[in-house]
Amino acid sequence: MPNPIEFYFDLSSPYAYFARHAIEPVAKRLGREVAWKPIMIGAAFKASGNVPLVQQPMKGKYSVHDWGRMGRLMNVPWVLPKPFPIATLAGARACYWQDAQNPARAVALAKTLFDAYFGQGIDISGAAKVAELAEPLGIARADLLAAIEAPEWKQKLKTETEGAIERGVFGAPFFFVDGEPFWGVDRLPMLEEWVKRGGF
Amino acid sequence: MPNPIEFYFDLSSPYAYFARHAIEPVAKRLGREVAWKPIMIGAAFKASGNVPLVQQPMKGKYSVHDWGRMGRLMNVPWVLPKPFPIATLAGARACYWQDAQNPARAVALAKTLFDAYFGQGIDISGAAKVAELAEPLGIARADLLAAIEAPEWKQKLKTETEGAIERGVFGAPFFFVDGEPFWGVDRLPMLEEWVKRGGF
Repeated sequence: MPNPIEFYFDLSSPYAYFARHAIEPVAKRLGREVAWKPIMIGAAFKASGNVPLVQQPMKGKYSVHDWGRMGRLMNVPWVLPKPFPIATLAGARACYWQDAQNPARAVALAKTLFDAYFGQGIDISGAAKVAELAEPLGIARADLLAAIEAPEWKQKLKTETEGAIERGVFGAPFFFVDGEPFWGVDRLPMLEEWVKRGGF
Repeated sequence: MPNPIEFYFDLSSPYAYFARHAIEPVAKRLGREVAWKPIMIGAAFKASGNVPLVQQPMKGKYSVHDWGRMGRLMNVPWVLPKPFPIATLAGARACYWQDAQNPARAVALAKTLFDAYFGQGIDISGAAKVAELAEPLGIARADLLAAIEAPEWKQKLKTETEGAIERGVFGAPFFFVDGEPFWGVDRLPMLEEWVKRGGF
């Protein structure tokens, strides 16, 4: 079994949202699985001295413009949600909890949350909203609300975030394949070429 | 005559160096000219709160790794020069001076300076070195040294840099085509698609 493509993201990262729509065709062409790894990007920003794009003069304005045309180019729904960015602890913990019992459903949950936030502008920061959005996937509301508050899943998210930072993750999306790091949705073509050639 | 692709760069920007090797085939396919516009990226960084990549924790280390593989992927010579980054006032002024009399030679000079710095690791910050590298292009040493110190070309570089910042340029390479902004060498495929479709 070849290594999966590790896909680090924050559910509040616009470029990770676009990567969520772009990664699977790439992985399929390469015969690789995708390991979906939500993290708290704020912690990685703190470690790397990075700040959210919208808080940056000039780059923030460009980014807002760019997200709109990325959506049109990729033919993917896009709204700039308000509030933005948000803390996505609840959704991220829910994903890890689901991943331990039903990995496919965890991926479906991540996609659902991404699409609710950036496709429809629904604020997904609250546990109640995450539970509501998860229900149609067959995830029991009470179980999810309990999991989000469980020390096990709080710790899991913390561990994954710290592990990502240790590996050099400073932004999202961030990919590793066979240990090689790639930052940004724009780098998927390079990632694909890398795997096809066995590195360069 | 369709508008040119405006290519803003600093001769000390690694990703602009890679764009220098990538932009012409794109422009050719689109039937567009390239307007080569050196600027002082430090001023744009100051305006946008940006800092040079190598000074950023984590992102700096990733960038150094990325530049090496960009060179291998594009099959373009690459060395991480020392010192890096450098001030490229002399080279940039020389380019504008040449552009006023012989635009093709100005482009050749920009390429020569880029390739000396990032292809061979030659420090191009000094006027004497710029003049030495320009000589094989048929540019008289004394004329170039005088031009670099002339108020006209000092002001031209200042004006172009300020104009770029006013247009929202916060990094390099930065492109405009028909007024649409694109930041980064990774965005050339999007730029190409944009022109082909007449926007999206």
